[in-house]
Amino acid sequence: MKILVLGVDGYIGWTLALRLLSRDHEVIGVDNFITRKRVREVASSSALPILSFEKRNKALLDRIGKNIGFYKGDVSNSEFLDGVVEKEAPDAIVHLAEQRSAPYSMIGLKQAKETMVKNIVSTLNLIYSMKEHTPQAHLLKLGTMGEYGTPNIDIPEGFFEVEYNGRKDFLPFPKNAGSWYHWTKVHDSNNLMFANKVWGTRITDVMQVVVYGTRTKEIEETSLYTRFDIDEVWGTALNRFCAQAVANLPITPYGKGGQTRGFLSLEDSVACLTLALENPPDKGEYRVFNQFDEHYSVIQLAEMVKEVYEEEFGKPAVIQHVPNPRVEKEEHYYNAKHQQLLDLGLVPHLLSTELVERMFATIERHRDRIATAHILPKATWRPRPMATV
Amino acid sequence: MKILVLGVDGYIGWTLALRLLSRDHEVIGVDNFITRKRVREVASSSALPILSFEKRNKALLDRIGKNIGFYKGDVSNSEFLDGVVEKEAPDAIVHLAEQRSAPYSMIGLKQAKETMVKNIVSTLNLIYSMKEHTPQAHLLKLGTMGEYGTPNIDIPEGFFEVEYNGRKDFLPFPKNAGSWYHWTKVHDSNNLMFANKVWGTRITDVMQVVVYGTRTKEIEETSLYTRFDIDEVWGTALNRFCAQAVANLPITPYGKGGQTRGFLSLEDSVACLTLALENPPDKGEYRVFNQFDEHYSVIQLAEMVKEVYEEEFGKPAVIQHVPNPRVEKEEHYYNAKHQQLLDLGLVPHLLSTELVERMFATIERHRDRIATAHILPKATWRPRPMATV
Repeated sequence: MKILVLGVDGYIGWTLALRLLSRDHEVIGVDNFITRKRVREVASSSALPILSFEKRNKALLDRIGKNIGFYKGDVSNSEFLDGVVEKEAPDAIVHLAEQRSAPYSMIGLKQAKETMVKNIVSTLNLIYSMKEHTPQAHLLKLGTMGEYGTPNIDIPEGFFEVEYNGRKDFLPFPKNAGSWYHWTKVHDSNNLMFANKVWGTRITDVMQVVVYGTRTKEIEETSLYTRFDIDEVWGTALNRFCAQAVANLPITPYGKGGQTRGFLSLEDSVACLTLALENPPDKGEYRVFNQFDEHYSVIQLAEMVKEVYEEEFGKPAVIQHVPNPRVEKEEHYYNAKHQQLLDLGLVPHLLSTELVERMFATIERHRDRIATAHILPKATWRPRPMATV
Repeated sequence: MKILVLGVDGYIGWTLALRLLSRDHEVIGVDNFITRKRVREVASSSALPILSFEKRNKALLDRIGKNIGFYKGDVSNSEFLDGVVEKEAPDAIVHLAEQRSAPYSMIGLKQAKETMVKNIVSTLNLIYSMKEHTPQAHLLKLGTMGEYGTPNIDIPEGFFEVEYNGRKDFLPFPKNAGSWYHWTKVHDSNNLMFANKVWGTRITDVMQVVVYGTRTKEIEETSLYTRFDIDEVWGTALNRFCAQAVANLPITPYGKGGQTRGFLSLEDSVACLTLALENPPDKGEYRVFNQFDEHYSVIQLAEMVKEVYEEEFGKPAVIQHVPNPRVEKEEHYYNAKHQQLLDLGLVPHLLSTELVERMFATIERHRDRIATAHILPKATWRPRPMATV
């Protein structure tokens, strides 16, 4: 298959491209390197060293004899994107090129608008371009489990049967996101559902969770590393906790830590996306996959990291609850379905002490890169700035 | 009360301002006159003659001794809007300043993006400005009943109790809109619900329907007319049917005409918005009003207009079904709740032959203004252009 990966320089984009190449797909990539720029802007950097895209792509050629056809550009620029789609006419397009940080979207009006406009416009550009040039291609779009929020009922995969006042219908599950970033993903999902309705575009809308891990089996040497963010704006919970432990910093769940979310290893994220690509939706189908392996509360993860660290390094690790910058329930019901990818053959790699140990080992080799000053939360969801911790 | 009306030059904005002034509120208005420009762009114009805003506002002063404090500008410009909100510090803000045409939003990618970005950004600008300068003010925002689509179950006012797999929650009703325009209103509603959650902004989100009618009791002379659009892009069903009948053109329901929607007279639209303003939400409340008087199918309206015309003018009127440019169900269940405004004291003015006769009389006086070439649909929801009718 010829697959266009938008956002190919990212944490998942790069790793997915390696997997797709290893499975003999042709991979065309697009990126504007905005994440590298935005991470520098908060004076942070990937906690694992990554080469420039050009050098990584060269290393890939040296190692496996092929690499990624690349276009540098911004998918919110419709002329640029349309040119790539028309020229390459891919069988499938993976859209990973959106602003992906919830805290960034909550910094202020400027960032809220940037997130809202860039994300929505990039997806609109893409579906119009596909309608024009590749009406039979498969769009694999990254959404988030955060679209659903934390309802007091089970979460289905996208749609459910509702009975109300004695009548029934099969409807989209009500969304209730927790940041401007998460809401852009809801808006995208709604826009995609509509594009499918009016034009029949084939779409897989992936509700992904917090992804953790440093590498996949294709990443066998430093030159092929994918990025690994642990700061307050670009990092995520489990990856950050591992880096905090390695750096002898307190492990910092937000608030009580009873927030329960789905989690997924980088290995399984890439496996899921590959399964979705190799088993595309039917003609005219819009499908929603809840993409995760298991649920954990944030405090469970913090405790697991603490235990593994103490076992492995023989030193104490400290858990320190910090004021929650987010407006979210810190104790709640959570039960989300995730059956369709299992039905396609996913064999989950669950979170284990061995996996955390391997993450420690990788992070430890680059311990000096952990930007300790940028880990605690400053961006806040609340009307007033955070008190200094 | 001091009330800021964004979009004060529009069909509803102007009429609402007149009502609010007559009830001794102070009215500040904002408009960038984009609707006048966009209507000219499709070579159409208001089927009733309207003066420039400046002249209408002068006529108002002459007639009632007071008028509207006015700022010309674009609410998608945050500096401009923020300046107005800070300087005026209104008690309530009515946001009617969005791109309001579904067909316009479906013309192509450019119009889709313009609608999406302008509408979402204007609402984001507004809620950030209110958070900063008027955190206790009431935001009255115009949404649309079209946000809900046409589910096979009853439509509540915004939220409903869901039972699923043996558990219950009170959740937002799933949205399923029918054009990019309608989706922007869903995205706005979601963004407003979130602003309320994180900042406690007081919000009334009005799900309004197709509004019909030429005037309200304050519009006693031509100099105070509000706009009246009947073309394919800016017009709506019942108003268009009345103008078609007066111009001896066929009355043109789209497709079978079994599409059922809520309808509301201009008089009642203004009455509802005034009720909402004079009975604001509680501190920290987000409430949703379904704002309409009654349901009709499009074909029922066409038949009513035909009958009244034939009775009044003694000439035959013709109903001609035209291919439906929209992707929508043409026969479906429809039952939406609309109780809260009745509870606040709304006395509905239902659609009647007398009301249609009065519309005929007003339109007839300006019969030569009906731009007959721009009534039949060209903008389409479908992948390919409409066949010429």
